[in-house]
This record gives sequence, structure tokens and C-alpha cells, in this order.
Amino acid sequence: MAETLIKIDRSKSAYENEQIHNRWHPDIPMAATVKPGDDFVLECYDWTGGQIKNDDCADDIRDVDLTQVHFLSGPVAVEGAEPGDLLEVDILDIGAFQDSQWGFNGFFAKKNGGGFLTEKFPMAQKSIWDFNGMFTKSRHIPNVEFAGMIHPGLIGCLPSKEMLTEWNRREKELYDTEPNRVPGLANMPYADTAHLGKLAGDAAKQAATEAARTVPPREHGGNCDIKDLSRGSKAYFPVYVKGAGLSVGDLHFSQGDGEITFCGAIEMAGWIHLRVNLIKDGMSKYGIKNPVFKPSTIKPRYEDYVIFEGISVDEEGKQHYLDVQVAYRQACLNAIEYLTKFGYTPAQGYALLGCAPVEGHISGVVDVPNACATLWLPTEIFDFDINPTAEGPTKKVTPGTDVPLSPDKE
Amino acid sequence: MAETLIKIDRSKSAYENEQIHNRWHPDIPMAATVKPGDDFVLECYDWTGGQIKNDDCADDIRDVDLTQVHFLSGPVAVEGAEPGDLLEVDILDIGAFQDSQWGFNGFFAKKNGGGFLTEKFPMAQKSIWDFNGMFTKSRHIPNVEFAGMIHPGLIGCLPSKEMLTEWNRREKELYDTEPNRVPGLANMPYADTAHLGKLAGDAAKQAATEAARTVPPREHGGNCDIKDLSRGSKAYFPVYVKGAGLSVGDLHFSQGDGEITFCGAIEMAGWIHLRVNLIKDGMSKYGIKNPVFKPSTIKPRYEDYVIFEGISVDEEGKQHYLDVQVAYRQACLNAIEYLTKFGYTPAQGYALLGCAPVEGHISGVVDVPNACATLWLPTEIFDFDINPTAEGPTKKVTPGTDVPLSPDKE
Amino acid sequence: MAETLIKIDRSKSAYENEQIHNRWHPDIPMAATVKPGDDFVLECYDWTGGQIKNDDCADDIRDVDLTQVHFLSGPVAVEGAEPGDLLEVDILDIGAFQDSQWGFNGFFAKKNGGGFLTEKFPMAQKSIWDFNGMFTKSRHIPNVEFAGMIHPGLIGCLPSKEMLTEWNRREKELYDTEPNRVPGLANMPYADTAHLGKLAGDAAKQAATEAARTVPPREHGGNCDIKDLSRGSKAYFPVYVKGAGLSVGDLHFSQGDGEITFCGAIEMAGWIHLRVNLIKDGMSKYGIKNPVFKPSTIKPRYEDYVIFEGISVDEEGKQHYLDVQVAYRQACLNAIEYLTKFGYTPAQGYALLGCAPVEGHISGVVDVPNACATLWLPTEIFDFDINPTAEGPTKKVTPGTDVPLSPDKE
Amino acid sequence: MAETLIKIDRSKSAYENEQIHNRWHPDIPMAATVKPGDDFVLECYDWTGGQIKNDDCADDIRDVDLTQVHFLSGPVAVEGAEPGDLLEVDILDIGAFQDSQWGFNGFFAKKNGGGFLTEKFPMAQKSIWDFNGMFTKSRHIPNVEFAGMIHPGLIGCLPSKEMLTEWNRREKELYDTEPNRVPGLANMPYADTAHLGKLAGDAAKQAATEAARTVPPREHGGNCDIKDLSRGSKAYFPVYVKGAGLSVGDLHFSQGDGEITFCGAIEMAGWIHLRVNLIKDGMSKYGIKNPVFKPSTIKPRYEDYVIFEGISVDEEGKQHYLDVQVAYRQACLNAIEYLTKFGYTPAQGYALLGCAPVEGHISGVVDVPNACATLWLPTEIFDFDINPTAEGPTKKVTPGTDVPLSPDKE
Repeated sequence: MAETLIKIDRSKSAYENEQIHNRWHPDIPMAATVKPGDDFVLECYDWTGGQIKNDDCADDIRDVDLTQVHFLSGPVAVEGAEPGDLLEVDILDIGAFQDSQWGFNGFFAKKNGGGFLTEKFPMAQKSIWDFNGMFTKSRHIPNVEFAGMIHPGLIGCLPSKEMLTEWNRREKELYDTEPNRVPGLANMPYADTAHLGKLAGDAAKQAATEAARTVPPREHGGNCDIKDLSRGSKAYFPVYVKGAGLSVGDLHFSQGDGEITFCGAIEMAGWIHLRVNLIKDGMSKYGIKNPVFKPSTIKPRYEDYVIFEGISVDEEGKQHYLDVQVAYRQACLNAIEYLTKFGYTPAQGYALLGCAPVEGHISGVVDVPNACATLWLPTEIFDFDINPTAEGPTKKVTPGTDVPLSPDKE
Repeated sequence: MAETLIKIDRSKSAYENEQIHNRWHPDIPMAATVKPGDDFVLECYDWTGGQIKNDDCADDIRDVDLTQVHFLSGPVAVEGAEPGDLLEVDILDIGAFQDSQWGFNGFFAKKNGGGFLTEKFPMAQKSIWDFNGMFTKSRHIPNVEFAGMIHPGLIGCLPSKEMLTEWNRREKELYDTEPNRVPGLANMPYADTAHLGKLAGDAAKQAATEAARTVPPREHGGNCDIKDLSRGSKAYFPVYVKGAGLSVGDLHFSQGDGEITFCGAIEMAGWIHLRVNLIKDGMSKYGIKNPVFKPSTIKPRYEDYVIFEGISVDEEGKQHYLDVQVAYRQACLNAIEYLTKFGYTPAQGYALLGCAPVEGHISGVVDVPNACATLWLPTEIFDFDINPTAEGPTKKVTPGTDVPLSPDKE
Repeated sequence: MAETLIKIDRSKSAYENEQIHNRWHPDIPMAATVKPGDDFVLECYDWTGGQIKNDDCADDIRDVDLTQVHFLSGPVAVEGAEPGDLLEVDILDIGAFQDSQWGFNGFFAKKNGGGFLTEKFPMAQKSIWDFNGMFTKSRHIPNVEFAGMIHPGLIGCLPSKEMLTEWNRREKELYDTEPNRVPGLANMPYADTAHLGKLAGDAAKQAATEAARTVPPREHGGNCDIKDLSRGSKAYFPVYVKGAGLSVGDLHFSQGDGEITFCGAIEMAGWIHLRVNLIKDGMSKYGIKNPVFKPSTIKPRYEDYVIFEGISVDEEGKQHYLDVQVAYRQACLNAIEYLTKFGYTPAQGYALLGCAPVEGHISGVVDVPNACATLWLPTEIFDFDINPTAEGPTKKVTPGTDVPLSPDKE
Repeated sequence: MAETLIKIDRSKSAYENEQIHNRWHPDIPMAATVKPGDDFVLECYDWTGGQIKNDDCADDIRDVDLTQVHFLSGPVAVEGAEPGDLLEVDILDIGAFQDSQWGFNGFFAKKNGGGFLTEKFPMAQKSIWDFNGMFTKSRHIPNVEFAGMIHPGLIGCLPSKEMLTEWNRREKELYDTEPNRVPGLANMPYADTAHLGKLAGDAAKQAATEAARTVPPREHGGNCDIKDLSRGSKAYFPVYVKGAGLSVGDLHFSQGDGEITFCGAIEMAGWIHLRVNLIKDGMSKYGIKNPVFKPSTIKPRYEDYVIFEGISVDEEGKQHYLDVQVAYRQACLNAIEYLTKFGYTPAQGYALLGCAPVEGHISGVVDVPNACATLWLPTEIFDFDINPTAEGPTKKVTPGTDVPLSPDKE
């Protein structure tokens, strides 16, 4: 069996673990070293480092400290890796811990992070998902069970100093256009809660003030939240520092395209089994700026869908110019409305779109002024028929449940 | 064999055919009438009504009159259909005419329509695609052959008077924010080139001044350009007028998600075989505003992809806030750059992304400030290996071809 | 558009067409000639040459003259093809004629051909299937509609003289073990109804006495009845004579694995669009004795099945030794019994297994003494739920129809 | 996490574990009890109970004691289950033990068990497969790596007394036709090595003389070796005794259709996670004699194949009458010959067909006298291109390895 290079003790704070970090910075020391061709296992905290509990109250979601996220395992040095190389990563498998067969999904309060539909769902809500082998279901969202397309929400290599500077420059520029916005336009460096692995002393203090937050995806990959970068897939990551420094975390048991609920997938702690190889000088050979990857041969084959369209006219009737973001938002709202006809609450519908393997496709981006996006809802995850019929829908959802909500504190 | 309800004569102007129209208006008279359960065939002009030729010169693309598009076949009345119903449409098959086994793809000049990457490709260019049974290839883009996922780019029912008014209101509002922009933010009603089927006299004159242009997708479906709404799929369209008034056109032999080249797919003339049924009062029963559909059981199964990521930082390094449109644009540019490493010209790469069955997925829409989009390039359409390898790419594309370009006229 | 090299006139006898033949013999003159790289269309009679009618009486099935079958279109010569080469054939598309959008399925009388379950269904029966674009349904088998996986039942190259001699030797040896068996163990040459294309005079008379019948698949491919060798697939056929001599016929709109009803698929007249290329000396290069092929990228994607097992114990309780034939027969009987619980007659069930895209898998061939075979019934072809549930089945099949039967004549 | 109802200690003999048995008999006491709706885990020995080692010598395969197999975990009683019910079983997941990430494949000596191609491969041979997450590769068969379609080779409920009697009757009848055959036509009860769980004393002695061997699949399922009954699938098993008595074992990491090498898949020890429910009186409701099942939504999606045909003429040129067994044997030999052209030894080819997810389809069973079977070889498991090309094959397999062989002892 492959060696477990990074172990975690979930009974202890992630801050105590020197093989964990929650910021991006080139000076973070390597946590372990491997050779090309090696395969190995990394254990990972859930992205919040254990802030969320398996219970029926959303207070923990409401009160989450988002300056702490995401806790990542790494960086792993790969011998021989140099800037300009591509690091080939096979995701051989991913799993939850034997004693922790559950995950959570949440809507953050609009005051504290928000989400894609935060205007419609401004309060904190949470659903808990139990894992049954390769499948999951939730006591908060009945009549649905589906296979996990398990993936790391966040994976990538350490940035170079220059790249970090550029990230901070461009994000600050955006941030400064509306610095008091809630939720914020961007999350700037924040030293107080930074954890930089083994880095200590003044070097750590300095780095903490400039280390990039982990929320956005960037050139190196990072928090891409791509559900298809799942176990069994193969990815190619740009290398920016000697040794590459591969880090990973934010494991998801399942997620819909867009990760629309922001806390966003079925979030879990667990382990990931990786194999690495190098393509020397691969970035210029292939003209690669962002990671590329190949899909898994082992993915749930949901092939039957009801597909919802959305266009870039918002729910107020305002016409936007070629805006897929608006169009996908409309497709999501259309799907939620449809689900309510079978008996789901809107919050259950929203959570389901965040957790289940729904597809989000960019269908049209040129037919001025409307972009067109589609949301693909797999029909086979329901234990009743969700297709339109001449008879119309009946309320087939078992009544009496909902997604727990915690109002904002005064 | 099902009856052909609408026939066309490609040697004559579409304006001479009373079963064709190129605007949306509730007063357009029905061109034919069917019963629920009927199946029937409609013949369709290509979307430009024959303005583009099967040759190696892009002048026709440069000089195209876009005020004429799209020429649609219909409207077909369905007995018993009333506002609020859903019209269930089975797309039983689609084909090109026996004597016209080819299609075209083009980039419009930035001055006359543009496209998704018009800043990079501001001049008119054209590629011609020959159909070989269910497959296609192009003399302008070598080393690639793929199966057509044939679909109507444009399909939907007539709008009501109220809906038409709303369309005009909101699009005018956007248009007025920058009325001189090239290309325009929206295309407003334009009477000179309107064709409203059988409608004649003063009624036609009046309708032409207010009839909606066909370019954008809207609530009724319309020009959605969804490659997955392909032959074999089943769609549910909202009905707004008595008799429904289903029209269809803009047939595509194949298209990539986003239809990024605007002239955008492999455009063709041909026929479509449909079957219609009704879900009475289906709009309120299912809470449906936009069409929903189910994918075809018969679609090309390209399962192996190289997947490119894009984030919402543009090529100037400017940070955009959660903008899938920007992110997908970056993914497209990344894919084009990659293709050049194997010997394609950038224009060939751009055309290929517009024509081949590439997937565009909305991967992340909440990780502030970066949206993440992915472009899925099927590897099996190439006659060489397009995957990254340790050896690096070799120029496997047969040299000496490109996509014909016609510079702007002075 | 590709040229139609062989045309047929269905109002005339196939015997009048010199580009048609119904026996295998190396002396059959080439009907047309093409070059490597060419694509072309061949029109084909249905396998019986028009003996079966679109009506509700099975007399034509009962009285069919099976010595006439199969009427093939060809042989097509390929320039440069020599014995030992592989002929690469792309099946670009297949279709029914515009004025003949239907097909038939039949059970032959046990006295005249029989079938896989002839002991259970000894009388002639027939079902008619209407084509609706890419889909089909039957007035004799309600509540089912499915996509055609259109394929040639019979395709291959002319045998050499030596190969023909060997075929006749080994089949005669088997035939002689029980020459009076009904149905026969093999079908020996039969000159009276032979049709050898352009071959005439004494040469034709001589050849007719030794020309091989077309019923069995053999080394060259021939009547393989492989549903997956469908439009869109690519096959490699051994070449035995100069020019290859490719012939094709017995077009099927759809068929289940095993073609268990013998008249066996949904049989149709139509056209096939092919492209040919050569792999010189391919037989020895690849060690190929029988054809190999690659599946189509465009095939109906039925992914949800109810799967029936069968073992090699027959319905009398007799134990057979590792016999997949017996095991698959049991799986078929199990599936038919299951279908009756929803209201189908056994004959409807049998016809459905012959026509629909059911899969037949060889699951175990070594666990003495029982072979195990599985029959995969796609659930999505039914307009009701065919899955087992705790509630049990209800009779959802519209009553009042059956597959017409014609008793044996005295 | 689900409870582990049956644990094993691989350092001890399976005979010491009272929750393990290696024969079928209605008197075997229940090893554990669950309720409908429960999910639970069972640990399983490999089918030989640990006789085979992870080394490079096939002596253990040659010397295996096949009278001991298969060691099964169970029987598990389900509360409320009665004869005539269907036991619905969800296979939620399956895995190897953390400290045992490997499996074995073997060809038994013709003298001791044999296999599908034992005439060609009469000596004992063995290959070892290492598991890398969801994938496997072998040091004995280079250039190939594939995803496991993990499944239980053997699963089913206890037979009733009447059913057991019938099994023994019919197998004895066959056995007696050639009692000295090697390998035997059937394996009759053999008391010496029987292990009947908790059953002890005279009852055990009596039962051992009549308990059925576990080798063949039978009405209850049993040793079906169906690769598609994999983790994620749902099966319905007939119930014959009060409490059902579900037993399972013979876990396979991967297997080709037919399990042609007899030792036959990639055999492993491990655990299986199951959930059970009941369909009361389901056998008569659905007319079910053998188990039925539904395929997993999570299976490796190998979609590109080279497909080999075989017909029922054997390698001596003898014509068999409609015999799929012979036809599939020919298809296997054709595939092995093809693989040698790329550099594999015949034994490596044979082992690969037994281990990799190759498909075996029953293509034609009625075209007298030839049955037609197809073997589907997935191309994506190889690290080189296995497709036919005009250039012909090159020896791409890394030379210097083979499948270890141990000659028969004198």
C-alpha cells in the first residue's frame, strides 16, 4: 500500500499540524518529498478545519470563520521539478475516513460569505449527508440518493514570488473599487489567521502579510471546484517553484457544476491517493498557462437529465449583455422552481443543486444580448419520476423535512 | 413517411416563400396546422437564406446582410394549443439535403457582427465542411473528422403581444446605453428586411416595425444554439398564443458549446422531422418560464477529452468579478494556444472550437473573485494523439492550409 | 454527395438486377469498381427480396422461400486490393428509403427455418415496425419505442476458391450427421434459386452448384448479424480475391444480441454509405483470420437495464456442460416470463427481444458444469417503469394486440 | 459507518472461522442477522482461503487444493425473509484490505482444473496485480493499467433442501456420463474438505456428504462471475429458506467476460458493503427463477474497443452446430494472436483477457450452423496504440517479462 505522507489528527487543531497550510506563498517549506513515479496518500482536513458539526443546527455555518479557510495538505516536493515543468498528477482514489462517513453543505449568511443565490437565501442553512459506500443521502433532503463523484475542490502548486505579487495586485485593484461591499469583491491577505506549515518566526510573520488567500481559482489551479477533476482523472499542473510544492484539500464527496451554494459541495475530511510524474519544460512545449486535465474513466454515468435553460435577463426583467453568470443563475432558479412542484422547499432545491452531480453548460455566448446557459438535472438520483408528463407533477417528496436555518444574530 | 408540411426551393429567395419568416411577431399567420401526436417534416433554409457559398473565399461572410437572418420555417399551428400549455416536441431526425451535403462556419468581421474572440480575429474568415454520412471534415482544417450532433440552432413558439412588448422594452434599454457600439449591444426591430410569412399589406408593415429580431435566445427558446438539443432529444416549449405557432430554422450539423464563432456552428440547409404533443396548462403545473428538454439517447459518445481551464482574469491581467463569460473566453484562448503547438493556425483552432462537439462547463461561480470555466476538447476527433506526453508535441497537422480570410473593405 | 453505385428497383425481382447476388462464389463478376479512399452508396433489397408485406398476416413469413436469401448488393471491386490485405470499411450512414419507412420481424415456422426458441414458438408470426425518424414502434407490440442501431446484418468479401471448398467440406460433414433434421443442421448449395449477378451461361450453372449459401457467418464476416457493427463503426475485412469484392445486404433497423427470432431483426430495404481503404498485407501483419471492427461513436445510449441471468440447465432440468447457447436461451425465457407480468404476450416478448437493442453477454464459461449468460433489457424503451419494485408489477401494457400468427398449412 | 458483521483474520485458517463456509446446504446456521433496510460490511477471504502468494512462482497455482473452494462469508439472515421473496441487495462498495493491495490471476494445470483454453495452456501459470487506488497493473504483463470493476464473483442465498437435491441429481447425471474425465464434467459433494460454518457434530458430517460444491452458478446466483454485478449495482436474489441466508465471497478486482482463465479474475481478499431489502413474494410476482440485477451507475467507461469475431468452427476446422462456447473460444484465440503482434506472449494475452474488462457478446445464435460471438478489447488500457493502422503493428511491449509457469510434477 502506498505510504501516507501526511497524517492528520482531527481531534487537534489544524494549526498544530506543520504539514498543513491555509495560504499560498512560495516560502512555505516543503512538508514531504517524493520522486517522479511515486504514489502516496495525503490525509486532509475538511476545508474549514472541523468547524462544522454533524447535527441539525446551522449556527456553525452562520458563525464560521472564513478567514481560516482552506486548510491544505502539503506542499509536497517532487524531486527534479523546476519552474516551467508540468506536474502530471494521477488521482488514484479518494475517500472519507472510516470513522467519519458524512459531509456537510451550507449556505453562508449574506453577511458572511453569501453564495450564488444569496439574495434569495440570505440566512445560514446546512444539510448533512451520510455516506453509504459510494452513495450518499441526507436526512434534510428526502427521496434522493446518488453516487459520489469524489474530487479535491482545491489542488495546485505553490506560486512563485512574481506570480503572488501579480495576484495581489490585480485582486487589490478589484477590491478597491468597492471595499465595503458585503460579501467582498475579493479576500485580501489577512495575517491573523494565516497558517504557513513549518514556516516560523519573522519569516512567517512577513509571509503572512502577503500570502494569498485560498478562495479563488488562479493560474496554478487552486480552488477550481471542478467536479470532473475527480478520482480517476489525470491533471497537468504548471510548476512555478523548484520542487513544485503540490498541495491539496477541500475534498468533496459530490458537487454540482458551479458549486453554487459556496459551502458548496458535500464537504468532507478524508484522504487522497496521488501519483506524480513530470513533463519537463511542459508549459512552453504545450503553451499552458492554466492546468489541463483528462476526465476519469470511472465516473457515475447519469445519462438521463431534465435540462433547464437560462438567459441573461435577470428576475427583475433587466437585460444583461452576454453574461453567462446571469444566465446560469436563471437556469438554477428555474430548476428550483420546478423542484418545488414535486414538494421540495426552495432551500432543499438549492442545496440539491449544490450537492448532486448536476451539469452546468455554457450553451451560447454570442447571440447578443443574451447568453444562454443550461443546468442538467440527473433524473436517476430521485426515487420518483421527475420528468414532465401530461398528467402533471404530484407531491412525491416525503413531507416534514427542511434544511435547518439559523437567522443572523442581532 | 411523414408528410413534408413546408417545402423550400433553394433556387428562389426565401422572401418568396410564405411559409418562411425572419422575425418574431404574434400576428404572423400559421403556415400549416397539425394535431397533437402528429409527426411531420419541415424543410429549412440555412440561417442566411443562401448568402454563403461553398467556395474558398470569405467575401460572402464579410458582406453578409445580418438584418435578414434567421429564416425560419413555420409557424406550425397545433390544434388545441393554448397559452400556458407546454408543447412537447420530439426531434425525430434532422438531415441535410441529398444535393447539398456541406455546411459553412465563419467569423464575422468585427465591423459586421463579430464573435466571441473578435478582438483576436477581427476579419471575416470562412471554413467549408463536407458531410460524409454522419461525419464531417473540412478542406480548410486538416486532420480532423467527427460525427455531427445535428440540431436546430433556433426553435420556439410565437410570442404573445405582451411578451413581444417586454422584449423590445428591455433590449431597447440596454441598446440605449451605448447605441453606437460596434458590434451593437442588441439588434432592434428593422422593418426593411423583415419577412413575415403570409402577412401582407398594412398589417405586415405595422408588424415589421415592432417584430423582434431572431438573434437572441429568449423565454420561448428561440436562438438558443444548444448543441445538445439535438436530433433524438425531446423538448417542452411554453405556448403563448392560440395554436402555439412553432417555428424552426438555423440547422447546425455540429457546434461547440458557446457557438463561439457566432456564424457559429457548421451551418446548413436541410430538413427536420418533428412530432408534437401537448401538456395542458403545463407552464404553471411545472413552474416553467424557459423551455426544458431531455437529451438525445443517440449522440456521439466522445468520452476522452483534454480539458482546459479558464478563470475570470482577462489576457490583459485585469481581474473581473465572478464572470463566466471572461473565464470561458480564457479557456478558449488556452485551447487555441495548445492547438497551435501541433501545427494548427490560431484561426483553424478558433474555427474548430466553434464547429466540433467541444463541451463548455460552468465549473465554479462562487469563489470570489474568479469564476472558473472549462472547455472540453474531444481527443478522438483528431487523426493523431493530442494528449500531453513527456516527449512534447510534434507538428502533426498537414501543413499548407488555413481558413480563408477576407480583409475589410476600405 | 457520394455516388450511388448500385441502385435497385423494388418493383422488379432482385433476380433481374445484375448487381445483386444471393450466393458466395469467387467467380461472381464485380458489379462496380472504386479506389481506396472513395465513399459511395449501395442500395439494398431487404434480405428476402421483397417477399414480406407491411400487413397484419403472417402467411408470407410462413411461406417464405429461404433458398432465395440473402440478396446482396455487390461485389464492389477495390483497386489494388489483393489476397492477404485488410479492407478497412467505414460505415458512414445507413437508412431506409423515403417511401418505405417500415420493417418486419418474424418467427419462421419450425418446419421452415425455425429460430432460437422454435420449440416454444413453432408457428409463423410477424410484427411490423414503423420508422419515425431515428426511432421505431410497432402496432403489434405496444408501449415501446426505441432508437434504431441501424446495421448491415451481412457484409464481407468474396471467398477464394480454396476457402469456398473448405466451407462446403466442413458444412457437409456436419449436415451429413443428420441430413433429415428439421430445421437442417446446415444449408448446402442449391442451384435452383441461385443468383450470381452478371455471371451467365455455363459458368453460372457450374458456380451455382457449388456457391455457398449466405446464412452463416464465416471467416470473411458474412451474415454475422452483429448489432454493434452499426452505422458509424469501422471494420477490417480479410481480402481473399483480387479486388476484394465487397458485398453487403440484410439491413437491420434494430436487433437484439443473438438475433434470436432468426427473421431476426427489424428487416428493411434501404441504402448504405461506405468508405473503403486498404491495409496492405494486413492479415499477416495483425494475425487476422476473422474481421475485426471498432464500435460506432454514435450509438443509442441506453444505460439502464434489467439484467436476466441464464445457466446451462435447460427447461427440462437437464444439465448441459458449459454451454452458453443453452444459458442464453434460459436468460431469454426468463426475460419473456418477466415481460408477461406487465401484460405482454409471450410472443410479444420474444419479438421484442429480437428487435430491441438488448445486450447478450457471455458472463461465465468455466465454472463447470454451468455456463452463465446474461440478457440486458434496456428499461428506457418502455413508456412505463419495468423495474422490480416492492409493490410488484401492474399490467401496464395496452391490451388487445398480439403478433399475428399463421398456422402451418396441412 | 456501517457495522462489520463478519471479520476475518487472514493469519488463521478459514476453517477456524465459524462465519465462513465453503459449501451450499440449507442447514448451515446463520452467521449474523440484519433487518430490511440495514447496511453492513462483510470481510471475505480470497476464494482459495489464502493458498496463493504474492510472488513470481506458479507452484501454488499448480498445487492448489480446489476441493476447498470457495470460502464464503455468511450466511446472513434477513428478518422476515421467507421462501418466494426476492432479496434486494445494493452493493454499496467493495475494497481490498489496506495491507493487502494486490491480487492474483492463474491458469490451472489441465490436470487440476484447467480453464477455457487449457488445450493451449495446459501448465499452471500465475500473474500478480498491484492495486494503485482504483487502478491495477502487473509486473508480469507490462504496458497496461486499468480501472477495477470490482465485484463479488459469488453471491446468493442458501438453497432449500429440495433445490439442493435437484442440483445433486442433475449434476450427478452429467458427471456419470464420463466420470474419469480430466478436468471433470462436474464436481460432486466431497466431505473431507467441507466447512459448514457453525454446523458441528453429526449434523455437520451428514450435511458435508450432500452439500453442493460452490463452483457452478445455479438458480440462486452463486458463482456467476458476472463482472457487471459490480460495486454500485443492485441485485434481486430468490429466497428459498426462512431468513434468506445471503453469502458472498470470491471478490474480484477486475475480470473479463467469461472469466476465461478460470482462476479467473484478479482474485483478492477484501470487504464488501451491502444493503438489503425485501420484495415479498417477489418470485411469483415477477416470474423470477434466476437472479436479476441492474448495472452500476459507477463503472469504468471504456468506450473504444477493438472487437474480435469468432464463429463456431474450431481451430481444427471442425464445424460445430450453433455453439457460442466454441465461437467465443475462437474470438479469444483471435484476440491473443493479435496481441502477440505487439509483443505480448500468448500467455500474457490469455491472462489479460481474463483480467481486463473485456466484453464478451453473444452476437448471433441462429444463423445455422455458425454461432457468432464477439470479444471487445478496450484500447484505453494500453499505454500504446493497439488499433490497426496502414503501417502495421510495431513491438511496443516492453520485452523481458512473462507470466511465471510451473510445469506439472512427475
